[in-house]
Amino acid sequence: MLHEQKIVLNPIGYVKTDAAGDEVRDKELISHIVVRDELIDGLSGISEYSHLFVLFYLNQITDDQRVTLRVHPRGRMDLPLIGVFAVRTMLRPNPIGLTVVELLRVDGNVLTVKGLDAFDGTPVLDVKPYDNWDIVENVKVPSWWLKLQEEKQKKL
Amino acid sequence: MLHEQKIVLNPIGYVKTDAAGDEVRDKELISHIVVRDELIDGLSGISEYSHLFVLFYLNQITDDQRVTLRVHPRGRMDLPLIGVFAVRTMLRPNPIGLTVVELLRVDGNVLTVKGLDAFDGTPVLDVKPYDNWDIVENVKVPSWWLKLQEEKQKKL
Repeated sequence: MLHEQKIVLNPIGYVKTDAAGDEVRDKELISHIVVRDELIDGLSGISEYSHLFVLFYLNQITDDQRVTLRVHPRGRMDLPLIGVFAVRTMLRPNPIGLTVVELLRVDGNVLTVKGLDAFDGTPVLDVKPYDNWDIVENVKVPSWWLKLQEEKQKKL
Repeated sequence: MLHEQKIVLNPIGYVKTDAAGDEVRDKELISHIVVRDELIDGLSGISEYSHLFVLFYLNQITDDQRVTLRVHPRGRMDLPLIGVFAVRTMLRPNPIGLTVVELLRVDGNVLTVKGLDAFDGTPVLDVKPYDNWDIVENVKVPSWWLKLQEEKQKKL
């Protein structure tokens, strides 16, 4: 059966950052993606984009955590129990992180980006350009999401 | 070294569509994501979102194609040779596809979505909600991208 095949990937590089713990969730955080030397030609032309998608492997997630199917968003017990495919939690069957970042600079095999919520040493699986097709005009999100957002705004 | 580790993933489900060939690139195409039965709890609450990211494994890409580092966008020789990380080509070291889709319906373990450019039987790696943080207001893309877009508009 197609959906039982195993898929093997090899990182294209890794994340370099001084940030630790919750600091990586700061949307203003500047970090680096160090791409493997032999893949440098794959970056050709990337500086013409303002934003990128970064796909990374959440290597701190254990096999036990990969079987979690419902979570309280941000671990908040006052919020409903939600399926892992309906939250951007790290706990998921295939622990792949996906973040839109701003591309600030390209120096050889190093991308300097803003807003990447990944820890130092995180393996990067792919980098893709963000383009106009990725912009959704009218997005609907759950009420718990809006509530969390509102709380965050109040703190600023 | 961290970035030399191999990563093993297992599909969470697969794509079901009647479309073939270039038909899958139709943004109006409606297709299905059939999630593995045992993961159904992971979909809880997903219908509250209007849009999702779908991450899928481009299983038609051969090992030989994974070493390609530069391509002409859409195979068009009149467009510049661009690094694979600067184009949404299927040819990339880790052949993962990423598409924003509109979520139309959830029936048990089946998601009905609009705009998924994946072939029938494609293994799905992850489904994530699209939220307000994924909307970028001022996107910069290369001139060749805008040229392709303009040609597409003229054809409609």
